[in-house]
Formats: sequence, C-alpha cells, structure tokens
Amino acid sequence: MTNINLLLFNNFETLDLFGPIEVFGRVESFKLNYFSIYGKCVRSSQGAEILTQKIDKADENGILLIPGGQGTRYLVNDEKFIEKLLHLAKQSQYCLSVCTGSALLAKTGILKGRKATSNKKAFDWVKSVDTEVNWLYEPRWVIDGKFYTSGGVSAGIDMTLGFIADFFDEKKALEIAQHIEYTWNPDKNSDLFSNQTKI
Amino acid sequence: MTNINLLLFNNFETLDLFGPIEVFGRVESFKLNYFSIYGKCVRSSQGAEILTQKIDKADENGILLIPGGQGTRYLVNDEKFIEKLLHLAKQSQYCLSVCTGSALLAKTGILKGRKATSNKKAFDWVKSVDTEVNWLYEPRWVIDGKFYTSGGVSAGIDMTLGFIADFFDEKKALEIAQHIEYTWNPDKNSDLFSNQTKI
Repeated sequence: MTNINLLLFNNFETLDLFGPIEVFGRVESFKLNYFSIYGKCVRSSQGAEILTQKIDKADENGILLIPGGQGTRYLVNDEKFIEKLLHLAKQSQYCLSVCTGSALLAKTGILKGRKATSNKKAFDWVKSVDTEVNWLYEPRWVIDGKFYTSGGVSAGIDMTLGFIADFFDEKKALEIAQHIEYTWNPDKNSDLFSNQTKI
Repeated sequence: MTNINLLLFNNFETLDLFGPIEVFGRVESFKLNYFSIYGKCVRSSQGAEILTQKIDKADENGILLIPGGQGTRYLVNDEKFIEKLLHLAKQSQYCLSVCTGSALLAKTGILKGRKATSNKKAFDWVKSVDTEVNWLYEPRWVIDGKFYTSGGVSAGIDMTLGFIADFFDEKKALEIAQHIEYTWNPDKNSDLFSNQTKI
C-alpha cells in the first residue's frame, strides 16, 4: 500500500486537488490521506470544507501532492508551513504540485537548479518566488527527478495520469482516463494554454 | 445572487461534484452551498470528508446539482432521500446531474417522458431505474427543459460549461475553461466515451 499524502490549506483551488484525487483514487494500492498543518477543517476557494489530519501524521515515504490556489500567496510567507513542507518534501518518494503549488515547493528551496512549471497566468509571480529554479513556461507538466509540477487546475489531471503511466504503465493511465470519461492529453510538452495573458 | 445547491451523499464520486464546482465557483453571482439529507459530514468514494448543511435549509428556487457514484446504488432504495430530492427537484430553477446522479432523479419519477443520459458503463442499471425515461446513450450531456444530465465524471465539467453558455453566453463558458486550463468539449451530442463496454 502506497500512501498518497494530500496537503491542503485554506483557499486551495478545488479542482487542483480533486482532479488528481479522482485519478489516484482509482488505484487499489494507493491510500488517500488528507492533511493540513493544524489538522482541522480546511476551506477551498469554492467554499468546500474538508476534514484533515495533522501533517505530522503523514507517512514520510509516501507520495506528496500539493494543490495551488489563492492560499499560496500568503503561505509562501508562512515560515512554519514552509518548514513542514520542506521536511515532508525531502522525505517523500515523489512530490507532485498542481498550479501555484509549485511556488510553495520553490519557497522551500528544494527546486533550486531543477526544472519546474506552474499556472500560466500566475507564472511571473511563481518565478519571483525562487529565480534559481529553471522555470519552463511551455509544458503542460514537468518532471525533474522525483518532482512533478503542472500547469493550472486541469493540467493536474493530465499530470497525474502521466504519473500513473510512469509509476505503472500507460495502459493503466488510459484505463483510468476511460473510466472517468476524460480525454487525457498525454503529451507533457504540449499545452494549449501556454499562450495565456499573464496576470 | 443565485444559490447553487449541491446535494452530497456518502460514496459520491469525487470529481462528479468538484468538476462542476470549479466551474460554478468562477461565477461571481453564484453562491455554492453544500447539502446532505442529515447535514453532517459526508464521505466521497475517494475518502474526502466534506461538511454539509441539512438539505431542508436549501433555497428551493436555486440550481440543484447531484453527483453520481457508488452511493446511488443504495440511495435509489432510500425512500426518505428520494422524497426530499423530489421536493427540491420540483421547486428548483434547474436540476443538473452527473453520472449516475440521473438514476436518483429518475427514481423520483420526475424524468418520466423526458430525455436524459448517464454514465456509459452503468447505463443499463440506470435505465432499469425508470424505463419510462427516454434514455439517450450517445450524448455527452442532454437538456430537457430545466433538466441537464451528463455522462460519467468528466462529462460533468463539459455539461456545466454548457450550462454556463446557456445561462449566460458561450464567451463566459470559454473564459472559465481558459482560466481552469481545461479543453472544453462544447458539443453535447458528441461523446468519445459512448463506445464503452457496459458493466
């Protein structure tokens, strides 16, 4: 059994989290665990209130997933959060981020010298968090070692299917996409949304 | 302000709900409200625990959305649930269902003589719930009066964008799709997944 550790925070973007969860949740050997720093109820930007456990209870050898969203804008300045994230990200077997979740990973310093991507509209802000990351604007998602980072919101679904293809095989990813009636974009280097106006 | 009333139940399919929520949540004049029959914590099939209010508190003139999932298999036999759903569905301005959520609507009898669709893999079971519904297998989503019913999981995202196009205009739907970096299939009659083996 592999633990999938989902790190939630207030004002996370709903689909950044629940898109990947729908994919991970289709793998019998994966166990989904919902965490936050304080282990209380966490509220998404779309008002969904989710129960979480305290992050200290996470299996440190699991697979970590961090969504993005408006909440990342203040969390990059929350030293306690960044310290806990660094500890868990260092230990984790894999670290996946969706959208501006990569800004949080970058703030820990763990992405220095590595390739990564993020939400296309928020790209300039994310880059400014750590200019020593090799930020790539064009891809749908980027892999560097154990780090998977994706573009905004729905890109997280494509990346998670890509992760399943790498971790198991492409057949399994395609089966899951078929089950959830989702048209998977399996090409991580091609993103139709990389022509967006930045904000 | 228009109330979007989300009717949750145990073992609902995560993305059936949170795909549409991501779309609805991008409309400033929409307020998202999370309900269940007993107003307690509801657990999705992927283990997410969501806080809800009691369904009796819902604005009866709002827009109702019902996800599908394994939970629908026993809820079709829950008389209290079906009675409450019928009351709310009758009053609601619009009723939207994703995946096997249409089996719950059908069980109330409110879809008799109307066109509707559902999850492609569970289609035979859904049809059996009320054979007097004009069940259509091919479409991605179906509109009949105030009723919008979609195929499985990701089809709910396409349908909700289609609903936004109808309620406002297509420009607004395309803007939201762009913001969530989602490749919208705007053709409700075309569904790549309608060739699936039924279970």
